[in-house]
Amino acid sequence: MQKADVVLYDRLIGEGVLDLVRREAERIDVGKRPDRHPAPQDEISELMVRLARQGKRVLRLKGGDPFIFGRGGEEIATLAERGIPFQVCPGITAAAACSAFSGIPLTHRDHAQACVLVAGHGKDGPTDLDWGALMRPNQTVAIYMGLARIEDLTRDFVARGVDPRLPAAVVDNGARANQRVVVGTVATIAAEARAAELRGPAIIIVGSVVKLRDELEWRAAAQEASAAAAAATFMLANPADRPRAEGEDG
Amino acid sequence: MQKADVVLYDRLIGEGVLDLVRREAERIDVGKRPDRHPAPQDEISELMVRLARQGKRVLRLKGGDPFIFGRGGEEIATLAERGIPFQVCPGITAAAACSAFSGIPLTHRDHAQACVLVAGHGKDGPTDLDWGALMRPNQTVAIYMGLARIEDLTRDFVARGVDPRLPAAVVDNGARANQRVVVGTVATIAAEARAAELRGPAIIIVGSVVKLRDELEWRAAAQEASAAAAAATFMLANPADRPRAEGEDG
Repeated sequence: MQKADVVLYDRLIGEGVLDLVRREAERIDVGKRPDRHPAPQDEISELMVRLARQGKRVLRLKGGDPFIFGRGGEEIATLAERGIPFQVCPGITAAAACSAFSGIPLTHRDHAQACVLVAGHGKDGPTDLDWGALMRPNQTVAIYMGLARIEDLTRDFVARGVDPRLPAAVVDNGARANQRVVVGTVATIAAEARAAELRGPAIIIVGSVVKLRDELEWRAAAQEASAAAAAATFMLANPADRPRAEGEDG
Repeated sequence: MQKADVVLYDRLIGEGVLDLVRREAERIDVGKRPDRHPAPQDEISELMVRLARQGKRVLRLKGGDPFIFGRGGEEIATLAERGIPFQVCPGITAAAACSAFSGIPLTHRDHAQACVLVAGHGKDGPTDLDWGALMRPNQTVAIYMGLARIEDLTRDFVARGVDPRLPAAVVDNGARANQRVVVGTVATIAAEARAAELRGPAIIIVGSVVKLRDELEWRAAAQEASAAAAAATFMLANPADRPRAEGEDG
């Protein structure tokens, strides 16, 4: 982060993360909001290419992990196509951050030997997955970007054979100072989330591990800030320890 | 990590991570090796309790994420039962680290809207999961602790209806300087992993995202060391910003 000449950042990066970037670096907000889209994906990728071709070290800073619902694969594909060298740094994905700070382990020897990370919507509308097969005993499901559709989703789960009594939780603004957690079942969680007026971003967790929260819940305000800072990742185009093209500065 | 009086660490923590711990802190290796078990789980939990009751700040340092196949839930359950305050810090789980450093995104809009994290063996022997349901188009499966049983696992996949032509990869020693990646299909990956004499620790990745590696592969030795350092997590018992019991020092 201290090497970057320019930083393209998302709205979901933790508070304080931008402060870790070199002070002289140019900062560009390419955050995508659910309602309006200030910078479509293609435009971000093209901007990275343009800046990299100017010889700049371009830091793409995202919340979570770039390869887990982060579209990192698409962005570096553009770089690879154009012959621009890059590095990728893995990150703490939202499900893991929400899990740690809500006291709901995603796996547990007595509860879940598998954890499914899934998007509540796909490229062209709602995700078409076999929810009945994913939500089974010994499996935890963590749903990203699902809060806006939680009524439809949970109704769909039950229609596809998911046990409506399965424990479920919504972790809203996970790992942040304003984190809120609502707990219920597949049958009740949508109504509970609405009643609590959760606005997201949020992770929905379904599975018997949710019951562990009664025992494992903890909060520590000081810790939150540091974890929010940790829960960001980056991809660096034109890293300094790569050979640079002739005529590039730096 | 600078607050700890004593550190209990695993064999899977990245190189250099221990150096981040306060120099005066006592270091205890509780690493579990596949062949012999120097410190069974119960013993680790009891040790944490004993040290915490001596008034020490106890740092439990693990590789990966403590709540994704990290048994963090079991360890803090012991702390919670005994009334010892704790904090949990999420981490970069092995599947994410292996994904980033092998150029195989776990999700991708055109390939996978879900990622299944699963253990190759369960508490009482092989994991009994519906592999046919987990390994489907638009889903990536990342298998932890599966290399030792890769022949049985992949045979089992096919027997349960998984397409033997599905792309598969083994990322061995992911994010480390000695990382090696073997690519094949569900039908061939076991033989390829054996031929390459991979020894683990390793993550097996199954799904069409594996094909993206042709395009997205990258390596950067300098980056590896720093990511290995990042790919560790901790849980802190007796954090300093909690009220401490009377008679505790520090």
